[in-house]
Amino acid sequence: MSTLPYDDQRLALLADRITANVAELAARGWTPATSSNFSERLDDRHAAITVSGADKGRMGREHIMVVDFDGQPVATDKRPSAETLLHTHLYRRFPEIGCVLHTHSTVQTVASRLFAGAGHIRLEGYELLKAFHGNSTHEMAVDVPVFANTQDMKVLAAQVDALLDTQPLWGYLIDGHGLYAWGRTMAEARRHLEAFEFLFNCELELRKLGCRG
Amino acid sequence: MSTLPYDDQRLALLADRITANVAELAARGWTPATSSNFSERLDDRHAAITVSGADKGRMGREHIMVVDFDGQPVATDKRPSAETLLHTHLYRRFPEIGCVLHTHSTVQTVASRLFAGAGHIRLEGYELLKAFHGNSTHEMAVDVPVFANTQDMKVLAAQVDALLDTQPLWGYLIDGHGLYAWGRTMAEARRHLEAFEFLFNCELELRKLGCRG
Amino acid sequence: MSTLPYDDQRLALLADRITANVAELAARGWTPATSSNFSERLDDRHAAITVSGADKGRMGREHIMVVDFDGQPVATDKRPSAETLLHTHLYRRFPEIGCVLHTHSTVQTVASRLFAGAGHIRLEGYELLKAFHGNSTHEMAVDVPVFANTQDMKVLAAQVDALLDTQPLWGYLIDGHGLYAWGRTMAEARRHLEAFEFLFNCELELRKLGCRG
Amino acid sequence: MSTLPYDDQRLALLADRITANVAELAARGWTPATSSNFSERLDDRHAAITVSGADKGRMGREHIMVVDFDGQPVATDKRPSAETLLHTHLYRRFPEIGCVLHTHSTVQTVASRLFAGAGHIRLEGYELLKAFHGNSTHEMAVDVPVFANTQDMKVLAAQVDALLDTQPLWGYLIDGHGLYAWGRTMAEARRHLEAFEFLFNCELELRKLGCRG
Repeated sequence: MSTLPYDDQRLALLADRITANVAELAARGWTPATSSNFSERLDDRHAAITVSGADKGRMGREHIMVVDFDGQPVATDKRPSAETLLHTHLYRRFPEIGCVLHTHSTVQTVASRLFAGAGHIRLEGYELLKAFHGNSTHEMAVDVPVFANTQDMKVLAAQVDALLDTQPLWGYLIDGHGLYAWGRTMAEARRHLEAFEFLFNCELELRKLGCRG
Repeated sequence: MSTLPYDDQRLALLADRITANVAELAARGWTPATSSNFSERLDDRHAAITVSGADKGRMGREHIMVVDFDGQPVATDKRPSAETLLHTHLYRRFPEIGCVLHTHSTVQTVASRLFAGAGHIRLEGYELLKAFHGNSTHEMAVDVPVFANTQDMKVLAAQVDALLDTQPLWGYLIDGHGLYAWGRTMAEARRHLEAFEFLFNCELELRKLGCRG
Repeated sequence: MSTLPYDDQRLALLADRITANVAELAARGWTPATSSNFSERLDDRHAAITVSGADKGRMGREHIMVVDFDGQPVATDKRPSAETLLHTHLYRRFPEIGCVLHTHSTVQTVASRLFAGAGHIRLEGYELLKAFHGNSTHEMAVDVPVFANTQDMKVLAAQVDALLDTQPLWGYLIDGHGLYAWGRTMAEARRHLEAFEFLFNCELELRKLGCRG
Repeated sequence: MSTLPYDDQRLALLADRITANVAELAARGWTPATSSNFSERLDDRHAAITVSGADKGRMGREHIMVVDFDGQPVATDKRPSAETLLHTHLYRRFPEIGCVLHTHSTVQTVASRLFAGAGHIRLEGYELLKAFHGNSTHEMAVDVPVFANTQDMKVLAAQVDALLDTQPLWGYLIDGHGLYAWGRTMAEARRHLEAFEFLFNCELELRKLGCRG
């Protein structure tokens, strides 16, 4: 009889799904040098999240741990990533969010530095804008925020929260750091992540071609 | 005894061939975020086509459906993509067309935006122009049209039809959206698709190198 | 008792080696849209070469044929590529040449167009120049010729021959078309091919970075 | 009873680990045309290192040899790479260094040429700076030195040694040549190598986008 404060069968299912998805993202080079972290909602008080510092191309169940929504470890002596709070504040605030993915691709990092001064990247006129849940047309614009990097995750979480008071959002960049993207399910979070990567890349390429201001 | 209005053994064959080819294109990153769709001619009134919204890297037979040449589902409650009409109007008009492929690579999307103002991309002086059926020399030019994006597929299909009245064509771009390419067989459509991707990429690279207007 | 004018056991060995190597090059995207062709010396009068028009990612023994050094088919009704003569004139002239590889990567095609006006690409100051047989230092320069494209292979072969009268050479580009590279063995030809691709790419990237004239 | 001056069971373990890691790096295209070399510390007088000239994508135990810290072969007639000394002088000087990796990616080579004049590449403001052992914040700068290329490895080793007298270092570039990176273990050296590659690539991309001086 389990005395754990969560369902350990569901944890095992999430751990397998997270590691399978992380392996695919690692194979694309989006998790360089043991960076990046990934989570899924376990229940209304817990999330399953990757441990700090592991090689994202070689993960197993032992690299997934449970945290509460304050970002504190639950029933484990594993060490969560410093950025765990950036996952859990989303789970606490939005019951419909089921998955948060944080990656460090070259495109995401370069875009974050290029647009840090402006504070956002505008995405406009792309068919793939329909990939974001809630959009049914390409005839709209999405401004993806770029936050300054900081080692103080509470400050960053508060900035994200303040922005979420004013607009819906499926992701944001941190300057010199990478992308956070989320969704109601792993599949939706993956779709949002791929759409951001693709659209940022298009914007960078168009600038190299002299096509933007 | 099948009462279906089409040959279901041929459908099974096409479904396997389409999913195998789509998996290869997905692995190249040409179908980001569940975008893109793919079809083959089933007979003189029907086509087999990918269903809407599926992850193109994880497709099975259940993701292939039958539509008539008005783009309407046949003997299924599956939902076709909004863009199905852009496949079927080609099958109806040209009995020799056997396969239509629609992809969203970064190169295709960036080229579509860069050349949307001009309305076409001129491809000239490349050996690979011989990859297009009917060309036997590199000493010619091909103008690939770029259409404005729209949510109204009937408008787009009519524009494509009007252009086909005036010239032969193996593909076109839609601004901010991607490429349609076709051929008499899957192999020929794949060859045309790869040739377009390669030649668009060369044109973009040459512009980055300061080699074009 | 074989009445063939060549050793068919050696042909089988070459066919397997060629198809294995071509599959690797196809996987890198260097043989788009059924382009490119590949050969090895069979004996002092014959070469084994890929047939015309096949998908380079799906080749078997049946896609390899025998030609004499005039580029004519031997003991087969298969059709050789139009460019066969560009392989066989090298085998006839240089008994030490054992393998000729012709590929169409994006980098090769873009470099050929960028440097067609100058007639050559200068490679200088790279450690990888030592990859070319006969070079023992990076303190030298290699000028890789770029020839105008033509459908007349005899003209092109004569131009290559004239240049070979004046200098040693392990490869050349054809404008808008791609690279020919060769070596004493398949392994050496592969090494030369990879070194050309790498060094051309460096030169293109340096130009994008504003580092060349 | 082994009379070898080293532990041959440990050698076998290192040989398998080196070849497995080299295969992964070769698959990324970081070891073009049989370039690059890789080593691990065997004990306080010996290192295991890749032999000269092998195809890095097809290595087995027979491609790993033992050298002493003068770079001389031990108990073998295999030929070490000319650059062996650049590995062994690090092992001699720093007992904590366990692994040295030398690669030739396009990004590394292009960066080395672009920054050869300045003599270093400054990396600043990137979260991934935390990937280097000893760094706990992104709020710092790392200057990666770029040395002139030379065929005289003693000269180069002396230059590296002189710089190591004045600052800690996890890697350096050689102009037109590639990167040396190291760490206490293979895993750490891989992490440092990937971080250098990623950060150099970001710096190059930002320059293409007009974002640096």
